[in-house]
Amino acid sequence: MDIMDIASLRNAHFEHWRLAAAIRTLTLDAVAAANSGHSGMPMGMADVATVLFDKHLRFDPKAPFWPDRDRFILSNGHGSMLLYSLLYLTGYPDMTLEQIKDFRQWESRTPGHPEVHHTAGVETTTGPLGQGLGNAVGFAIAEESLRARFGAKVMDHWTYVFAGDGCLMEGVSHEAISLAGKQQLSRLIVCFDDNGITIDGKVSMADVTDQGARFAAAGWHVQSIDGHDPAAIDVAIQAAKEDPRPSMIACKTHIALGSSAQDTAKGHGALTDAKLIADVKAVYGWDAAPFEIPADIKARWEQMGQRGAQARTEWEARIAALPTARQAEFKRVAEGEAPRKLAAAIRGVKQAAIGAKPVATRKSSELVLEAVNAVMPETIGGSADLTGSNNTLTKDLGTFEPGNRKGRYVYYGIREHGMAAAMNGMALHGGVLPYGGTFMCFADYARPSIRLSALMGAKVVYVLTHDSIGLGEDGPTHQPVEHLAMLRATPNLRVFRPADTVETAEAWEIALTQPGPSVLALSRQNLKPVRTEHTNKNLSAQGAYVLAEATGKRQAILMASGSEVEIAMAARERLEAEGVGTRVVSVPCMELFAQQDEKVRRRVLPPGAVRVAVEAAVRQPWDRWLLGQGGREGKAAFVGMSSFGASAPAEVLYEKFGITAENVARTAQSLL
Amino acid sequence: MDIMDIASLRNAHFEHWRLAAAIRTLTLDAVAAANSGHSGMPMGMADVATVLFDKHLRFDPKAPFWPDRDRFILSNGHGSMLLYSLLYLTGYPDMTLEQIKDFRQWESRTPGHPEVHHTAGVETTTGPLGQGLGNAVGFAIAEESLRARFGAKVMDHWTYVFAGDGCLMEGVSHEAISLAGKQQLSRLIVCFDDNGITIDGKVSMADVTDQGARFAAAGWHVQSIDGHDPAAIDVAIQAAKEDPRPSMIACKTHIALGSSAQDTAKGHGALTDAKLIADVKAVYGWDAAPFEIPADIKARWEQMGQRGAQARTEWEARIAALPTARQAEFKRVAEGEAPRKLAAAIRGVKQAAIGAKPVATRKSSELVLEAVNAVMPETIGGSADLTGSNNTLTKDLGTFEPGNRKGRYVYYGIREHGMAAAMNGMALHGGVLPYGGTFMCFADYARPSIRLSALMGAKVVYVLTHDSIGLGEDGPTHQPVEHLAMLRATPNLRVFRPADTVETAEAWEIALTQPGPSVLALSRQNLKPVRTEHTNKNLSAQGAYVLAEATGKRQAILMASGSEVEIAMAARERLEAEGVGTRVVSVPCMELFAQQDEKVRRRVLPPGAVRVAVEAAVRQPWDRWLLGQGGREGKAAFVGMSSFGASAPAEVLYEKFGITAENVARTAQSLL
Repeated sequence: MDIMDIASLRNAHFEHWRLAAAIRTLTLDAVAAANSGHSGMPMGMADVATVLFDKHLRFDPKAPFWPDRDRFILSNGHGSMLLYSLLYLTGYPDMTLEQIKDFRQWESRTPGHPEVHHTAGVETTTGPLGQGLGNAVGFAIAEESLRARFGAKVMDHWTYVFAGDGCLMEGVSHEAISLAGKQQLSRLIVCFDDNGITIDGKVSMADVTDQGARFAAAGWHVQSIDGHDPAAIDVAIQAAKEDPRPSMIACKTHIALGSSAQDTAKGHGALTDAKLIADVKAVYGWDAAPFEIPADIKARWEQMGQRGAQARTEWEARIAALPTARQAEFKRVAEGEAPRKLAAAIRGVKQAAIGAKPVATRKSSELVLEAVNAVMPETIGGSADLTGSNNTLTKDLGTFEPGNRKGRYVYYGIREHGMAAAMNGMALHGGVLPYGGTFMCFADYARPSIRLSALMGAKVVYVLTHDSIGLGEDGPTHQPVEHLAMLRATPNLRVFRPADTVETAEAWEIALTQPGPSVLALSRQNLKPVRTEHTNKNLSAQGAYVLAEATGKRQAILMASGSEVEIAMAARERLEAEGVGTRVVSVPCMELFAQQDEKVRRRVLPPGAVRVAVEAAVRQPWDRWLLGQGGREGKAAFVGMSSFGASAPAEVLYEKFGITAENVARTAQSLL
Repeated sequence: MDIMDIASLRNAHFEHWRLAAAIRTLTLDAVAAANSGHSGMPMGMADVATVLFDKHLRFDPKAPFWPDRDRFILSNGHGSMLLYSLLYLTGYPDMTLEQIKDFRQWESRTPGHPEVHHTAGVETTTGPLGQGLGNAVGFAIAEESLRARFGAKVMDHWTYVFAGDGCLMEGVSHEAISLAGKQQLSRLIVCFDDNGITIDGKVSMADVTDQGARFAAAGWHVQSIDGHDPAAIDVAIQAAKEDPRPSMIACKTHIALGSSAQDTAKGHGALTDAKLIADVKAVYGWDAAPFEIPADIKARWEQMGQRGAQARTEWEARIAALPTARQAEFKRVAEGEAPRKLAAAIRGVKQAAIGAKPVATRKSSELVLEAVNAVMPETIGGSADLTGSNNTLTKDLGTFEPGNRKGRYVYYGIREHGMAAAMNGMALHGGVLPYGGTFMCFADYARPSIRLSALMGAKVVYVLTHDSIGLGEDGPTHQPVEHLAMLRATPNLRVFRPADTVETAEAWEIALTQPGPSVLALSRQNLKPVRTEHTNKNLSAQGAYVLAEATGKRQAILMASGSEVEIAMAARERLEAEGVGTRVVSVPCMELFAQQDEKVRRRVLPPGAVRVAVEAAVRQPWDRWLLGQGGREGKAAFVGMSSFGASAPAEVLYEKFGITAENVARTAQSLL
């Protein structure tokens, strides 16, 4: 097809055309001003967006956080100007024309890719392809769960996604769509921008997949339409709503519609050439000045925004009419507040754990979850097919499935990435608090979504069991050694590696009550309890604390986390027996320790004594605490891993890799 | 279906049955001895494996590295006893019965999951699900490429894969099968262990995907058979070979066949109960002692192994008959030796770069590749749809595609994970040297395969451009800050971050000539050349070296990598002007520096001077060089990132995040 005959489109749907042209021209102007960005996608998808916002999407620009709004997710986030244009046109107060003019500039609300919590009306941070689609599955799960719990008067909305070829080529899309298909998430509607173009050229250079057949194979309702025909778009969205399956609408569009770059890879990027822009505006029949939207068009867009206000006030009236306790409970979960009973539940686990027999911290986590899930009905647990190993299922949760939307446990399948992306979506939707398990090594598979949890501050809990060579025979493919370093290097992510049930309970308490994501690194093997006295105080909240003090003069400080704390304690016994006063510092969370005042840190790690850190992982994150914070070279050493692991029983591995109390004690002695 | 009527199977195919039962009983005995492992998959897939090895697979146990052997890849690697049984039965000399008895023990050749380079006959390390399938695509690409280059007399073989439900749920499977479908890799045959069971229970709890329809949508030939019917298996493999598409055979099997755990999740794991084992052996009609294989059965298995020896000797004769130069060239690439011309090519780039104008190191990399690709016909380049940004395509490479198997550039599509998995497969196949590009931030998507590159020592080069906030407007979703820490924490991985074209050439030279994987972290933005004099010596091979010496007394040492080296150099100018003698150390590769003698390290980083490291990334990997290696707290500081980035022009970001020469100089002064 040659450059489309815009005139005939325009004549056939004149009002629609002008509405859509407002998106297209704002995009062209903003990208030109920034001299960077992506023009082609908004130009291609403007018609679908216009129909969606005009006829279907329920939203209120004056109340962008209204819990029962429809969600609009731009998975192909490079087309951010589509979203910013929509927010400006429909009247989101923060999205002024100045912001549009400031596209991609420092501290603007219009960054290169949409960022949630930064720009009202942006539901999730997208750009890394496929993530928005994965998030959307979580949004839809959250909606189903809350509708089942609170009823359709409280929760009853749709999740719409725009996704491009890139989103659908990424592996996470497979995990997302097959999970959605299994779960029959009928409120999920994906508009696929089927433009046949990627950065490198035609999609066919890299892919010949029949996307419709592929979605159908995963249990989806599939349609294919002309993405520039407003009537067809409307009919397709209506049909999608009526079908009981999740729906994919392949919208055949022309990237960079109407420009000389239409249907080319060039059209994907920033169209900044003045002549090109002038030409395409002429083709559009658009004669307004740059960034100028004729008043009638702006008014028509704002009407769409106003329409949702009525639905929102009706919803508020329904909420106000709920019984008080129900209202308060909805408000509590919508705002992400922990229930009052949580503290007592955690305390109960901590108390019961004193003097208990050794258990793996993955089992400790299960003990905590039994108590937590009983008092926090907003939790939604799950595992990527390792339920019995991750210990993520507690009694009475029930299975979340098409026939039981009140179920609170999701069998995610062997889909770590899809699980993490969905959990991000649930957390962003609000009203639910997701946690999910896999082996720590397979956090790798979920890594792009874990990073986004951190970037977005999404309150998600990653239950990562089998956290070291302590898993034994499964060998190096399953034994994390660099993962703690990777996770600790990630900004805004709390990485807990608790040493026993008490620390595990404390880690969970922080994860459930503080904003943002947490990782729990948990052992496969049984661990001796290291906390022998109960205290209500959450010692792990300090990140690191003195677990055992030196007898007499303090000559050595042993630091450890998780399964190696008991090794440090055993090493301390040896050293003390040899007359070396030895402090043991448990380090359940380096990030929290780093946030403490220098004074606190110095109290825990005073200068003077020699230091040995022990962790069955690589040294990198420990250098700071060994060599800095009062430590120094020649007086500090690390006992841990410097290579990948191996397949053998766990005790053999600890012995062979030298992670033993004997070696820790000998190492400390050698420094004295 | 109830427990299968084994008697009827046995009677119908008596010889086949006993051959397959040998795999099943060895598995049961080894798992019982180890008291861990996975019994069910080998018990389920033994029939398919027996037919494949008996009738199709071309292999020679006495020459396990014969370049033209068929490849057998166990993607569902937890079923490792299937593979070890096959290796033992067919007579691989290293795979003794003692090894089988030592399953999952320290230093045995039978680790929990198959490990390449550890056990002859294991083609790739598997266990993390989906990876073997992704590797197989690379094996098949390598075979096609070498067949096109050297002819079918030299290279003409098949790649067979066993994959389970887990492999097919993982996202990487989508990337792998759609890439294979596009590339019409007809020599790739996947036997899907369609047993309907995962760890958590029935597949249907998590997945309702029609796998056959899904593969067909990606362009594959699809069959579904009874995986216990040897005749059907043989016919299906034959049909798969005859079809011009890649082929998937869904083999309906019963996990843990014939046992009381058949068709259950329990059957997936370790069956160690003595009665269960006795019962199932009785069902099999197997009365040999544990680990004992009746001589006639062992002899019949060894015959299969011997059959391949003839094919191998014929192949050797064909190789011997090749013209000398051609023979030598094949031998060279098969053994992974760099060509003699490489050194001169690298030297040429280095010389031409002296005094050249600023370029981005991604462009430097392209300059190097132009020279390298011209003299190394074994390179196969590619990009995950960022060709123009990664600068990975050089002239005359040609596109690898069904109609042009001599092409050396793969358009991988938006499939970082599939690309990395395929590159691992190519490297393991041998004869080709793969490199592939993406944005550094999206290394996250490929992370599971990058880890396996390192674990396997696969010679793969990751071209990771846009390596910091220096990419500017695309914002925090695209700006790596923790990725250098993540990659450097990974054992066996060289992470280069060159500062200019000379260092980029040196990095490439090491990546191409040393074993194992390398990462090149490359800038989007132009960088001033920092090397002003040519030397043939590869200074980057030391990992870190003195780029500029202090004038007079050395009071400060500035360390930096990549795009921040020019900032360190500018800071040095300021400091020197202020009378502070300042050394600049360029650190293109921490791993190589860590491998140097203490003496060398101390020469580069002597104690005494204050130290400032500057890198537009998190501090974690630098603590060692700041606080250790002669440095100390109070006399060392870091200038870099401690949060995610932001969307704005690159210069603005460097300024706002304080990564400037001025700040580096001021920081050094504050320490003095």
